[in-house]
Amino acid sequence: MTIREEQVLERIDRARRSRPRLREDTITLAHGSGGKATHTLIEAVFKEAFDNPLLNRLDDSAGFTVNGADLAFTTDSYVVSPLFFPGGDIGDLAVNGTVNDLAVSGARPLHLSAAFILEEGFPIADLRRITESMRLAAGAAGVDIVTGDTKVVQRGKADGCYINTAGVGVVRSRPPGDLRPGDAVLVTGPIGEHGVTIMLARGELDIEADLRSDTAPLNCLLADVAGACPGAVRRMRDATRGGVATVLNELASDAGLAVVVDEDAIPVRPAVRGACELLGIDPMYVACEGRAVIVVAAEAADAALSALRGHPLGEDAAVIGQVKDDPSGLVLLKTAFGGTRIVDLLVGDPLPRIC
Amino acid sequence: MTIREEQVLERIDRARRSRPRLREDTITLAHGSGGKATHTLIEAVFKEAFDNPLLNRLDDSAGFTVNGADLAFTTDSYVVSPLFFPGGDIGDLAVNGTVNDLAVSGARPLHLSAAFILEEGFPIADLRRITESMRLAAGAAGVDIVTGDTKVVQRGKADGCYINTAGVGVVRSRPPGDLRPGDAVLVTGPIGEHGVTIMLARGELDIEADLRSDTAPLNCLLADVAGACPGAVRRMRDATRGGVATVLNELASDAGLAVVVDEDAIPVRPAVRGACELLGIDPMYVACEGRAVIVVAAEAADAALSALRGHPLGEDAAVIGQVKDDPSGLVLLKTAFGGTRIVDLLVGDPLPRIC
Repeated sequence: MTIREEQVLERIDRARRSRPRLREDTITLAHGSGGKATHTLIEAVFKEAFDNPLLNRLDDSAGFTVNGADLAFTTDSYVVSPLFFPGGDIGDLAVNGTVNDLAVSGARPLHLSAAFILEEGFPIADLRRITESMRLAAGAAGVDIVTGDTKVVQRGKADGCYINTAGVGVVRSRPPGDLRPGDAVLVTGPIGEHGVTIMLARGELDIEADLRSDTAPLNCLLADVAGACPGAVRRMRDATRGGVATVLNELASDAGLAVVVDEDAIPVRPAVRGACELLGIDPMYVACEGRAVIVVAAEAADAALSALRGHPLGEDAAVIGQVKDDPSGLVLLKTAFGGTRIVDLLVGDPLPRIC
Repeated sequence: MTIREEQVLERIDRARRSRPRLREDTITLAHGSGGKATHTLIEAVFKEAFDNPLLNRLDDSAGFTVNGADLAFTTDSYVVSPLFFPGGDIGDLAVNGTVNDLAVSGARPLHLSAAFILEEGFPIADLRRITESMRLAAGAAGVDIVTGDTKVVQRGKADGCYINTAGVGVVRSRPPGDLRPGDAVLVTGPIGEHGVTIMLARGELDIEADLRSDTAPLNCLLADVAGACPGAVRRMRDATRGGVATVLNELASDAGLAVVVDEDAIPVRPAVRGACELLGIDPMYVACEGRAVIVVAAEAADAALSALRGHPLGEDAAVIGQVKDDPSGLVLLKTAFGGTRIVDLLVGDPLPRIC
């Protein structure tokens, strides 16, 4: 590393250690991006107010024990636009998203809630299409939607239909989260398909591509991995808002270690790569809704990879990088051209409302 | 009963037995009222799609057992307008509402989720005020907010801030729900304060009244009642959207029995009565956010009432009626003038977005 590089890393490190300060007076779309602004909002407002050990971990789900039962509990609201898109709709997205938040916590998803905020004038036929898609997604994931709520707001106070799902699961074995230098970093499949599909479905761009959202329930796939390398799974995260880049940053930052990924190893379908080039965005930041990042002990990498590839949702899984000692808290990308660059958290929100 | 009255009752009975049919093509505000239209929407769309025994009960929470732990799980979205009103705001409403849904199920509320849908441009200061109020409400109810989510939508696609809370509780003793003729029907306090407060806070009416929302956590109050008359509590419901009238209808309908209430016995504060008269609405249909309807065995009525009155949130509790054999499924009101009228489910929505 040159002295200049070291100075840059030091500056980044200092900035990251300082207490996040919210500079804005009002909410911007970036606060919903899953990137830097979202992190700052969570730290400065939500953690500040709700401060408790379970929330403060900011995991995909909160874990707690009730009368000896080891539970995981999670929630997500869905505001995706458009509501219907190639490969899915807001309904299966809402089911799969919550199923996946439980699954990456090492839990078997059991029961979901579904709460609808509907805009006056929303077609009942569309609502039926959405609930049918939720029914199928719940069936595929092996969960039941057991409780719900419906609110209606006046025309112009929503955008058709927003859905919240919360979920309860029973923890089989929660990955401990303690990354170690040498650990292997895997993704379960090609990245960015969901986000790019949504962008194209909005029709604002004159791009045609044969793309479908990757929305899918990951519970069986991830259970297969856990079964194939017992005790060796360090951490799992689904790469939704902010994409794989954001997940890797959170992994590195939480562990105080570095994650070094190999650009060439990251599976990206040509249609996604092409669309991203035209859009001027990096597929690493584009949301997936059926892909997870998994960190396993080095010696378990092959077993994990073959478990993934043995499942239809993991056919194109790949080892994309490795955990290293330093630079602490940072994600480095070894580019196809032999260079190395820092992959930082997203600033702003180039893709609002993708989930 | 005259022959005419019998014919009327028969007609109502027939209509209620028939499978609910959704006549509308689009969502209307009435679908969010908690009344007839909401029931039809739930039956014809949500139950139809998500069909499972836990959901089909349509209780305030779903109850299930995980590894021997007896759990309750519930969700509600909050779209109240205005966000801030005398006695509370959307924040404590969202916490108390979910706490109460667990409490009426005989559960001790443990953990809540909080998911925010924020409109671009929403003031951070208002968000802080809301989260502070959630913090205080969670503290008062003895629950933690352990997981959450934030989404942001463009200007004009929401109304400042919508909140979903889901909650998990551990069941102490779930009321069996089997009403019997002779059972006593109680309310825990004066009705309609929340709904009327919201209407007045909108400032569309030129009425001044010293009213505050009744939003409050009922878990301790209801636990006191359960402790005071063990085994005698048949059913508890919090009287939110659609008010006490809607709850009584659901009780009667579920049990296939009649509920006969005494208009004179229903506690209504003069300011609520006055505002309702001016607004042309019946306080029986106005939402409370800190009041429950409790059905107990006749011999336990006194014990339940004195337990309620011994708690600050139940000072003005009252026995308001009795469960009878017939007319099956109906609620009858004995009016102050010696007459009797049927209290039916609400049609339409005179008070949209009160929670």
